[in-house]
Amino acid sequence: MTWSHVDNPWPTGGLSYGADYNPEQWDRDVWKEDVRLMTQAGVNLVSLGIFSWGLIEVADGEYNWEWMDEIVGLLASNGIAIDLATPTAAPPGWLLAAHPDIRPVDHDMQPHWPGARLGWCPSSPVFRTYALRMVRAVADRYGHREHVVMWHVSNELGGGNGRCYCDTSAAAFRDWLRHKYGSLDVLNKAWGTAFWGHTYRDFAHILPPRGNDAKNPSLVLDFDRFSSDELLAHYLAERDVLKSVTPDLPVTTNFMAGAEPDVVDYPRWARHMDIVANDHYTRSPDPLPEQDVAFSGDRMRAMTTQRRPWMLMEHSTSAVSWQPRNRAKAPGEMIRNSLSHVGHGSDGILFFQWRASLAGAEQFHSAMVPHAGEDTDLYRDVCKLGEYLRRLAPVMGSRTPQGRVGILFDDEAGWAMAKGVKPNNHLAYGRIVRDWHHAFWRLNESIEVLSPWSDFTGYEVLVVPGLFLTDDDTAARVSAFAEAGGTVVVGFLSGIVDEHDQVRPGGYPGAFRELLGAWCEEFRPLQEGETFTLDNGWSGTEWTELVRVRDAEVIARYSGGDLSGHPAITSRALGTGGRAVYVSAGLDSDALLEIARSLIRPTDLSDMPKGVEVLVRRNDEEAFTFFVNHANNEAIITARGWEMLTDELVNGELHIPAGGVRVVRSGTLT
Amino acid sequence: MTWSHVDNPWPTGGLSYGADYNPEQWDRDVWKEDVRLMTQAGVNLVSLGIFSWGLIEVADGEYNWEWMDEIVGLLASNGIAIDLATPTAAPPGWLLAAHPDIRPVDHDMQPHWPGARLGWCPSSPVFRTYALRMVRAVADRYGHREHVVMWHVSNELGGGNGRCYCDTSAAAFRDWLRHKYGSLDVLNKAWGTAFWGHTYRDFAHILPPRGNDAKNPSLVLDFDRFSSDELLAHYLAERDVLKSVTPDLPVTTNFMAGAEPDVVDYPRWARHMDIVANDHYTRSPDPLPEQDVAFSGDRMRAMTTQRRPWMLMEHSTSAVSWQPRNRAKAPGEMIRNSLSHVGHGSDGILFFQWRASLAGAEQFHSAMVPHAGEDTDLYRDVCKLGEYLRRLAPVMGSRTPQGRVGILFDDEAGWAMAKGVKPNNHLAYGRIVRDWHHAFWRLNESIEVLSPWSDFTGYEVLVVPGLFLTDDDTAARVSAFAEAGGTVVVGFLSGIVDEHDQVRPGGYPGAFRELLGAWCEEFRPLQEGETFTLDNGWSGTEWTELVRVRDAEVIARYSGGDLSGHPAITSRALGTGGRAVYVSAGLDSDALLEIARSLIRPTDLSDMPKGVEVLVRRNDEEAFTFFVNHANNEAIITARGWEMLTDELVNGELHIPAGGVRVVRSGTLT
Amino acid sequence: MTWSHVDNPWPTGGLSYGADYNPEQWDRDVWKEDVRLMTQAGVNLVSLGIFSWGLIEVADGEYNWEWMDEIVGLLASNGIAIDLATPTAAPPGWLLAAHPDIRPVDHDMQPHWPGARLGWCPSSPVFRTYALRMVRAVADRYGHREHVVMWHVSNELGGGNGRCYCDTSAAAFRDWLRHKYGSLDVLNKAWGTAFWGHTYRDFAHILPPRGNDAKNPSLVLDFDRFSSDELLAHYLAERDVLKSVTPDLPVTTNFMAGAEPDVVDYPRWARHMDIVANDHYTRSPDPLPEQDVAFSGDRMRAMTTQRRPWMLMEHSTSAVSWQPRNRAKAPGEMIRNSLSHVGHGSDGILFFQWRASLAGAEQFHSAMVPHAGEDTDLYRDVCKLGEYLRRLAPVMGSRTPQGRVGILFDDEAGWAMAKGVKPNNHLAYGRIVRDWHHAFWRLNESIEVLSPWSDFTGYEVLVVPGLFLTDDDTAARVSAFAEAGGTVVVGFLSGIVDEHDQVRPGGYPGAFRELLGAWCEEFRPLQEGETFTLDNGWSGTEWTELVRVRDAEVIARYSGGDLSGHPAITSRALGTGGRAVYVSAGLDSDALLEIARSLIRPTDLSDMPKGVEVLVRRNDEEAFTFFVNHANNEAIITARGWEMLTDELVNGELHIPAGGVRVVRSGTLT
Repeated sequence: MTWSHVDNPWPTGGLSYGADYNPEQWDRDVWKEDVRLMTQAGVNLVSLGIFSWGLIEVADGEYNWEWMDEIVGLLASNGIAIDLATPTAAPPGWLLAAHPDIRPVDHDMQPHWPGARLGWCPSSPVFRTYALRMVRAVADRYGHREHVVMWHVSNELGGGNGRCYCDTSAAAFRDWLRHKYGSLDVLNKAWGTAFWGHTYRDFAHILPPRGNDAKNPSLVLDFDRFSSDELLAHYLAERDVLKSVTPDLPVTTNFMAGAEPDVVDYPRWARHMDIVANDHYTRSPDPLPEQDVAFSGDRMRAMTTQRRPWMLMEHSTSAVSWQPRNRAKAPGEMIRNSLSHVGHGSDGILFFQWRASLAGAEQFHSAMVPHAGEDTDLYRDVCKLGEYLRRLAPVMGSRTPQGRVGILFDDEAGWAMAKGVKPNNHLAYGRIVRDWHHAFWRLNESIEVLSPWSDFTGYEVLVVPGLFLTDDDTAARVSAFAEAGGTVVVGFLSGIVDEHDQVRPGGYPGAFRELLGAWCEEFRPLQEGETFTLDNGWSGTEWTELVRVRDAEVIARYSGGDLSGHPAITSRALGTGGRAVYVSAGLDSDALLEIARSLIRPTDLSDMPKGVEVLVRRNDEEAFTFFVNHANNEAIITARGWEMLTDELVNGELHIPAGGVRVVRSGTLT
Repeated sequence: MTWSHVDNPWPTGGLSYGADYNPEQWDRDVWKEDVRLMTQAGVNLVSLGIFSWGLIEVADGEYNWEWMDEIVGLLASNGIAIDLATPTAAPPGWLLAAHPDIRPVDHDMQPHWPGARLGWCPSSPVFRTYALRMVRAVADRYGHREHVVMWHVSNELGGGNGRCYCDTSAAAFRDWLRHKYGSLDVLNKAWGTAFWGHTYRDFAHILPPRGNDAKNPSLVLDFDRFSSDELLAHYLAERDVLKSVTPDLPVTTNFMAGAEPDVVDYPRWARHMDIVANDHYTRSPDPLPEQDVAFSGDRMRAMTTQRRPWMLMEHSTSAVSWQPRNRAKAPGEMIRNSLSHVGHGSDGILFFQWRASLAGAEQFHSAMVPHAGEDTDLYRDVCKLGEYLRRLAPVMGSRTPQGRVGILFDDEAGWAMAKGVKPNNHLAYGRIVRDWHHAFWRLNESIEVLSPWSDFTGYEVLVVPGLFLTDDDTAARVSAFAEAGGTVVVGFLSGIVDEHDQVRPGGYPGAFRELLGAWCEEFRPLQEGETFTLDNGWSGTEWTELVRVRDAEVIARYSGGDLSGHPAITSRALGTGGRAVYVSAGLDSDALLEIARSLIRPTDLSDMPKGVEVLVRRNDEEAFTFFVNHANNEAIITARGWEMLTDELVNGELHIPAGGVRVVRSGTLT
Repeated sequence: MTWSHVDNPWPTGGLSYGADYNPEQWDRDVWKEDVRLMTQAGVNLVSLGIFSWGLIEVADGEYNWEWMDEIVGLLASNGIAIDLATPTAAPPGWLLAAHPDIRPVDHDMQPHWPGARLGWCPSSPVFRTYALRMVRAVADRYGHREHVVMWHVSNELGGGNGRCYCDTSAAAFRDWLRHKYGSLDVLNKAWGTAFWGHTYRDFAHILPPRGNDAKNPSLVLDFDRFSSDELLAHYLAERDVLKSVTPDLPVTTNFMAGAEPDVVDYPRWARHMDIVANDHYTRSPDPLPEQDVAFSGDRMRAMTTQRRPWMLMEHSTSAVSWQPRNRAKAPGEMIRNSLSHVGHGSDGILFFQWRASLAGAEQFHSAMVPHAGEDTDLYRDVCKLGEYLRRLAPVMGSRTPQGRVGILFDDEAGWAMAKGVKPNNHLAYGRIVRDWHHAFWRLNESIEVLSPWSDFTGYEVLVVPGLFLTDDDTAARVSAFAEAGGTVVVGFLSGIVDEHDQVRPGGYPGAFRELLGAWCEEFRPLQEGETFTLDNGWSGTEWTELVRVRDAEVIARYSGGDLSGHPAITSRALGTGGRAVYVSAGLDSDALLEIARSLIRPTDLSDMPKGVEVLVRRNDEEAFTFFVNHANNEAIITARGWEMLTDELVNGELHIPAGGVRVVRSGTLT
């Protein structure tokens, strides 16, 4: 398998800076103002045309290119590069009216009514035909314009059409299953359909998981996989058209990868992207948005090959509009978030969107130019960030050195954990993984978010949190890592089911029981508000297990309750110096930090002033060390090198303002 | 525009007293008992026939008038006047079975299944035809009976059929849009359809806001307006039939106007009513039901011309049946509420309903005659209230003098705020307005709830709370009020969007920025439980803004938090003595009271004993002052005149019992 | 009316012990292991074939008996008896595909999508035909096999198809109504359809209560009754086929009777069961699961004739899978629950299921053999319980002596209270009844859960809690009980409506007003968190009433609040020594305990050590006294006899371990 993004040139000369740009919402006099403000802010790349299908193809086969020609020309003449979108996120009204069957249908068989986004069934051949005709038309007209530097396929694929339950999708699902399983006997066995008498005698009897009842979880998981594959097939079809016209322009689509469940399987999609790109939005009630930024950045970097740069395609300058209470960013937070993304490997900082809309569903979403205009703190910070990114240009192309800690993450495991009834239905996969990420992030470890198929070589610690679904190969490779001298930490609810979502019998976690030298007789999930305490003083909530030890040391035992005296954390030493630790309980964050501390030797970075995050990027000659101060007071550290944002020599004390960032070039710390 | 209710004679000789009367639920021996009890209680008006369609028109075109003839005769012979209903609230089973397409359809395209109320699409021509035939039949048969004194069109129009999304409604919506906008170009621009690529090329592609996604807010607002207009058209069609038969009988329908969002635009409907009538029910968990009564009363009075009397068509003697936990009224509360309504301008007190039903969906709704019968505190209070209303007969026709404080209220602003995603989706328009009403109500101000088109002349203070949608004309008239020497108080989220629901750019609030001499760069809504404090000690929740001052005095600044030191409340002095105050934060009620106190000079009424509400009505000769004691202890005040409920002279001290009411005729206080 | 289960022989020689057995989920080598482990654990009965329809009838009329023949033979040759299921709970995929109309349809007219359970409309003639053909095929093939000892009809009838709103069901509902009421005039009067104008002129216009609006409660109640009758008709149809083949084999189906609302009317079904069987699962957040076990056991015993034994057909060894957070049972809890069920009259302890499934919707449901296998605390406890049940064999066939306290319970009352809008919609019938059961259970009373038609002879106290619907006959029989010298305790919301769900006017509770010598003018439900206090110090929540006394003593009055000084609890002495107590308020559990104590004279059992439950079974020669210690510490009591679990003589002190059980044969306590 080759990866598309290995040797692709970056589309902009410096770090990319810009936004989605939707000039169709504005009069032409605003366009001129836009270009002036973009230039002033240092914008060098905009994503254009994402929702423009119906404004170009105004009726079936009838095109109006005039306004698009004009804006493309205006941007080009001002030196602003274009990330040109295929406008397939927004099928025109005439198409939906002529072919209502292209609308996606939800699990209750209700059609998606026009008026929002992505109103199309990924399996619809009618939609595919119209969409590809439009893609080719756009590519033919603009693909060879000099300032068109990359392709932006559709938009947030799966956001609105992630699962379609219509009859067309059902037929496509059956084809997918026929191809995967070959025969019904194999499928019936893989899904365990004998339960509740669901054995299939004809592929035609298989339906998507329609309705609201608890379905066979293996069916649901395969429907998730199928749905991801159908959307990927759509992406590839658009990509192929684009490549046929402009073989050398990079093609991508914007992911939505964070701690929420992925709507499609981004790690398995990533290899097909010429540039890996992400949209990331923090959550208003999240007490740790900065760690959410770090987690998503670590995820994205892991989706490139060998930690190459990726592109932050969308985030927000301030509040979004789709949360219950949309928190505005605090002073400095937008710049801090942006430079954190760069520190985590992004060579571009783009926003949704350039200018705040006056109308439409997202009229209260922040933008680079707010409703209040240019005389605002927000726009001034936008300009300041533009200047910072200009100063950081030498960072381009540098990579993050391989860290010591890898965390295993897999969308299939997350989907398997999320669907169907579970022992504790209040546990979320992304949350479990982020909790472990948090522990090592507090130690300023550079954390690699690995996939089951990743190369585990070179890590000291491999964390396996909540990897509910674990196939045999992954289980074997994790064990081999420990046998080769590494430290494996298995969290609860890892290794429970196989690739068909069937429980591995014989004691949980079936995939890692032998490795751990310990096993669980029974899950003992806690009720809301229930807590536990261990004999070393640690505490936690949500999850406990009845664990038995075969060949391992007990690190901590329960103190009080039904499990009093039983093991909660165990560690097995392997002859090679390797270790296999089992953390079977839902520990709180301080306990996880203590565990993390116990697993790796401290570095200079582990003892930064509280709230200072350190991120390193490197090329063959230099290192760039990002110091991000999330605290409300100035931090003073020791560093040597050239501070790039203030353009000053550092030789000893470096003062990082409260909420501020400093980037030291070739500093002594690395 | 003429107002229907200007010179209409009141339908009863004294203050109206009575209820919905549904004799069809009872045997004839109960009817005789009813008339005896009505007479004993002083009932002089009942609303008859509201749900009787199917009991009269027993099959298509086949009528059974016998029972109705009998009850009309029985009431007439006992001197009880009839507010005769057109029975169109309840289409008969045979009609629904023959024409299932008349059922309304919800936003998920589910039809309304028979068994509740108002099961008809307001745009259905089939329903309209059947309904008007029935209206004419009723009018022909009973319109000229002496005791039939007014018409009650249908019932709570919009309660159950406020929005219909069916194909018939969709076609009517398109016609409404064609008429409003003339062309698609105008519509596309007004709605900002370029956002998310929704530009329309054919009116036929426009649909009601079906489904659950976030739709274009301008479309949703127009659908709200259209829906209100369709129901009004139905009202007017029934009214025209009634007027053709009985030109002199007053026609009305019962509104449901309070602090909850109006289902139709009552202030815009009011001019078409011969008598403005309201149904008002307090909410069980409301800690201030008495202020809710005041707010609804102030709203109703504002919908008449020059504060003429209105009619309370329904409220409850005690508990309702449709709330999660239906609180019974406390001893005295029913009489206190009723006399409050009179004090706020109602010349009638009617209830739903006369006798508590034994069966049906509202079998546990209170009534004038409870399930337990006449030997009950409740029925005794009903009789006592009848006696009080008899003694208060001289109040009839008197009006409330114009107050000093006007509050601007508009359903379109409320709808615009409620629909679509907003910066803080936990804010409710009615709540925001009621909070300001509460502040002045605590000072015993007579508050006028004004509409954007109201005459602002004569007020000292004009409060503009949460008037999210503000058109240019309203903005100009508010400014003119301040320029003429008045005090304008603009609350947060006022003047944000124009009449098309498009944001006014250039700094919030766009409609009032110049007037205020201050503007907002960015909204900063708070998370649940988050609070703020100002440098003068005031505090609040839910909402803050980053405000900048151009030409205004800062009254209070934030103390602590990201906004520390930034203005929260500003005041701009105009050369004329006028003032424009901006309250940009979600202050708590004590702070709002302090602001209210600072805006108007105190009167004798501002310092009543705690809990005593004072309401004044006046005619050319006399004043009637209502003292409503909401407190749990007796209040003693100074007054002179004749106390009408106890029929005693007052000359100095007036004792108002805990929870009681006193009404002084020609008292010295006014 | 004869009862089916009067003289039926018990299907196993000793107490039955076993589980649902689903060998179709496993390979044949597991079958052999299963039989070995069953034998080791003492299993003597398994329910076989519940979900096997599609695995036997592999296409329409085409049968594959081979695997079933083999497992039946294997069990038989190992001496394990079979409770053979008719497999109609799980219609095969080919049947659903060929006849999609057999799917049940929900109240929003959405069909039940395949993939869960009981996907069939109870009124479908097509389903009935296919189902009965299958039943006959199974009966013909296996009915005369020696080890097939009873029939298990379908599974948890109503779980998934309890209410079907499809057109076929609608037609059947109309037939049911025609039969019940004869004419529309009678129906219109019974339902009070005049309310909201719903008078029916044609049976064809009557629909099931489709949609979400508040419907006529009388209609909804009749639809509940109809739905129960339709499922019973299905049961009887299967039973008749089975009896035609094997007239002597007992037939049953598994109920789901507890404190949750019954999906069908089990007490009215019970007489048609040859053995009355129940599935009982405790709820994870329930702080008193042991009382839930007691309540369900008392309910089941009441459904047999003269307290004959019943059969616990399903419960769980530990956690279930369908609750939000599935609590595992604490050490000892499974054995304690099981022996409690025996103490309450069950002669069988069966589980869902034998071996934990690896796949399917319930893959995390506990079983007798857990995922972790036989080397587990859970399986060891399963074996220990097998041994205990073997030692308890002499208990078989013994009955519980009639207790002193009866509690009146009726599904129709519960349905009437649950449906439609109510004064306080947060009150649940089962909860209200369980609260009273709890009070007497704490006193170790043997409580009889009586039906309205039960013989009340011999009881000292008859509790009538929340019997919302009470027909005239029941009201008369309750009064007669008091007149004959018994003590009646009427709780709030009893006797409110008649058999048509119409309010009994004249003062609540209409059915018991005369008996109580007290009546309620008005309900005064409390808001969330609101409490009340009585003048004797008792307190409570949720419910109060304005009560007036005609001829009764006031036991306690309200202290404070609007009702201060008004009666809350009254007692009327009848000349015969009888008494009628009215508890009109929502008292907390300590107050209910005090009332219970005041109503019956103490026995030795009332003062057991805290947490020790005492249950007695008896035959003509002997008594068996079960001491169940729910406390966390050892209890010491005085007893004499033979302890059956430890096989030791007891003569004086009996030590019951914390969480343990002891059973004394012919002990002195009884």
